[in-house]
Amino acid sequence: MPDSGPLGTSPPEQRPASPTAMPDAPTASAPDRQITPTARHFLAALHPPVTIPGPPTPPTSTAATAGLGAPDTAAVGSAVPGTSVAAALGSAVPDAPDTAAVGSAVPDTSVAAAFGSAVPDTPDAAGVGSALRRILRGPTGPGTSSLSLAGRYTPTVPDPVPPDPAEPAAGQAVPGLYYHPVPEPNPVRVEEVSRRIKAWAEDEVQLYPEEWEGQFDGFSVGRYMVACHPDAPTVDHLMLATRLMVAENAVDDCYCEDHGGSPVGLGGRLLLAHTALDHFHTTAQYTPAWHESLTSDAPRRAYRSAMDYFVRAATDSQADRFRHDMARLHMGYLAEAAWAQTEHVPEVWEYLAMRQFNNFRPCPTITDTVGGYELPADLHARPDMQRVIALAGNATTIVNDLYSYTKELNSPGRHLNLPVVIAEREQLSERDAYLKAVEVHNELQHAFEAAAADLAEACPLPSVLRFLKGVAAWVDGNHDWHRTNTYRYTLPDFW
Amino acid sequence: MPDSGPLGTSPPEQRPASPTAMPDAPTASAPDRQITPTARHFLAALHPPVTIPGPPTPPTSTAATAGLGAPDTAAVGSAVPGTSVAAALGSAVPDAPDTAAVGSAVPDTSVAAAFGSAVPDTPDAAGVGSALRRILRGPTGPGTSSLSLAGRYTPTVPDPVPPDPAEPAAGQAVPGLYYHPVPEPNPVRVEEVSRRIKAWAEDEVQLYPEEWEGQFDGFSVGRYMVACHPDAPTVDHLMLATRLMVAENAVDDCYCEDHGGSPVGLGGRLLLAHTALDHFHTTAQYTPAWHESLTSDAPRRAYRSAMDYFVRAATDSQADRFRHDMARLHMGYLAEAAWAQTEHVPEVWEYLAMRQFNNFRPCPTITDTVGGYELPADLHARPDMQRVIALAGNATTIVNDLYSYTKELNSPGRHLNLPVVIAEREQLSERDAYLKAVEVHNELQHAFEAAAADLAEACPLPSVLRFLKGVAAWVDGNHDWHRTNTYRYTLPDFW
Repeated sequence: MPDSGPLGTSPPEQRPASPTAMPDAPTASAPDRQITPTARHFLAALHPPVTIPGPPTPPTSTAATAGLGAPDTAAVGSAVPGTSVAAALGSAVPDAPDTAAVGSAVPDTSVAAAFGSAVPDTPDAAGVGSALRRILRGPTGPGTSSLSLAGRYTPTVPDPVPPDPAEPAAGQAVPGLYYHPVPEPNPVRVEEVSRRIKAWAEDEVQLYPEEWEGQFDGFSVGRYMVACHPDAPTVDHLMLATRLMVAENAVDDCYCEDHGGSPVGLGGRLLLAHTALDHFHTTAQYTPAWHESLTSDAPRRAYRSAMDYFVRAATDSQADRFRHDMARLHMGYLAEAAWAQTEHVPEVWEYLAMRQFNNFRPCPTITDTVGGYELPADLHARPDMQRVIALAGNATTIVNDLYSYTKELNSPGRHLNLPVVIAEREQLSERDAYLKAVEVHNELQHAFEAAAADLAEACPLPSVLRFLKGVAAWVDGNHDWHRTNTYRYTLPDFW
Repeated sequence: MPDSGPLGTSPPEQRPASPTAMPDAPTASAPDRQITPTARHFLAALHPPVTIPGPPTPPTSTAATAGLGAPDTAAVGSAVPGTSVAAALGSAVPDAPDTAAVGSAVPDTSVAAAFGSAVPDTPDAAGVGSALRRILRGPTGPGTSSLSLAGRYTPTVPDPVPPDPAEPAAGQAVPGLYYHPVPEPNPVRVEEVSRRIKAWAEDEVQLYPEEWEGQFDGFSVGRYMVACHPDAPTVDHLMLATRLMVAENAVDDCYCEDHGGSPVGLGGRLLLAHTALDHFHTTAQYTPAWHESLTSDAPRRAYRSAMDYFVRAATDSQADRFRHDMARLHMGYLAEAAWAQTEHVPEVWEYLAMRQFNNFRPCPTITDTVGGYELPADLHARPDMQRVIALAGNATTIVNDLYSYTKELNSPGRHLNLPVVIAEREQLSERDAYLKAVEVHNELQHAFEAAAADLAEACPLPSVLRFLKGVAAWVDGNHDWHRTNTYRYTLPDFW
């Protein structure tokens, strides 16, 4: 895989610029800090070697059968390419009996097989899997109950029995992009999530008119979410993420962009939709009209329903976190809309700042709810965690700019994306600007991984480690969805 | 005081509308619920009887001298109009030695005197004060250290010695408004905060050109913040709130309204300013330009500096809470701007929903940081706490609409406020619309108090009780500032 060069240095906001400017990230890494052995091992554990595209590797019979009846989280443990991560982190994990209480009947042998077959250097894979399995499942024992949400969530339909591993999907990665391949998402889960999300969209929230069905199918949101949440205990958990993803796209399409959206008046529409997530509290006279408004268009029906499901499965703090991330997203939409209205092309750094808000962030940050555990609020709020999340969101969002470049060029009007802004502001050719945007992505991805490794070392709590892994898995799954979604995306002819 | 009638009922979002719509507030009050005795006592304790305007009542000599050397929080304890609150809540407070470790040398006898003189029915005021003093100070003992931030914050300048109690300021309350008078703010604190905030504005952040000095002084932000935070341990704590209030007004004035603001392109400006609160994380090449941008105009200099001070005093979760509330505020500005651009007059409920975001909320919700303790994140995120905060913010924000009505009528262009929207949408005369807006406010204020009382009963933890009192104090102080700020506000001639 290509490497864009040195790791990104810490931004200057972490260095006081004056006596009154104090850093808010006292534990963040110093510039040019070397990655420690523990951090390097953590990074390695994030990304098991997977070669895609290419012919599928047949599963090892041991992994395929041993996975029967075990939840995904146990199966994922076998993906570690060495024993060092388990050794380095194992001491932070309470040694507890295997509760396996995630409420799932999913055998998921295909995921286990896909992970298992990719392990080239794990002579003691069973032992490693056992240690990392505990990390990925989260702690048990006194005082750790808040780390598990599985008990709050009883699946109504047992997950289906998986078939053989799927063929890797077609689709070319952006040349030169630094990314991590992922195992082919469990096709049984993909099929079940796809079936359920379509039923939800059509029957529960009347999301789209009949003529948009092809576009809905082409979105392949089932594959997307299964790839991004490999540790979800059940399909019900996956549905939490899938509904929200669909709802977010409905708001973007219908209010902002492709399907009748416009920057004109957007602030009013987004705020009223936001009340489906962050409820409005008012007098008796004015409450019914608000309540009715939540069923008055597809975006609001989708936000409301998806949020209702999410709130039932999440802790209060997780719901609060999601609302905050959605407020960020809506601010980002509105900055982009303001520039569109005034035909302003921002500086590259301004565009990137806008893109930190108009960003996938609300998707990876629910990884713990979807995984059936909780990253406690005080750990989520740590400045070093906030930096990890921001960098992950930024890297994964620039992936969208790169893969949607051709699609957006072919859309009406000028659509800002990173290559377009670099070309205009830095006077580069379209090709050179695109290639520079790839380098920007690569530096962000490296910076995310370095920051995650530093945090894993500074705060090796089970919920932190699992959350970091979950965010990394989301970033990888998001890339894979873009790579394989040839219905939506084609690459430019720059190579 | 007038009463608008029945308490507001719970909005329907707390009643499932369909099998898939689950409430997110399982502990919230049911419609038409009666206020219990405990809740009634809690409400009474929130608002000690104070008659304003009128001639000042001389302080009782006992209260005035007993307060010497004690922090404000102890002095406030004498404001309880009965023993029932202390009796009802005392059992929830760990009985601990008086640590008095708030780091303050403020005698603050004037506050003690003002509170003390207003107590009409407290034969055992000393005993009540002792019990409530512990509540207001927060718990001590094992496991409670997170409730106190005082130790993180060492004042550099000792608070001044107070003079005699001040004369109540002039200014008429809106007739028919349901509100609670407050004791005259400690004039020594007001003077010291006023001196320091002007030095900060002029020397640290170069907030305004010389010709705006009169307007800055007329804002009377020192009086404002001292009235809103009676339990702040030191002037340093008060400065946290004061800087943020000034910064928020600078952004509103310079980006949105009075001083060069405009709805055009506002989304871009607000987002870039928001990065002063919620930092941007990007590559090495683009970081310096962002960093320089934070010093490039007065709003961003003010946001950045005020936030730097705040982050140093706050916990990570408190800083995260503040960022969320500011994202809400910026979304509210952008909804209002969108309607201004399209000359759209929203429905009354839509206007009120916008006003739940374009709202004072970020000010009362820092009451714990300013008070030197922490409401833990998981308690802040509770749906019933979120409802209390939203209702408090909505009531206190409609106060602004009522007092600024005449000012806004005399400003260029049409400025939406609640009376204007009611007049247009409900075909009422200006006078009738204004009077209806007063009733809307009164219902929101009653609903806030009922929700706070319910929460105090459901979750009588010391940090929750103190936070609720702090929010109520902020609401009362905010009203008093509007009432007395005759530099900015005059009432319409409707009575």
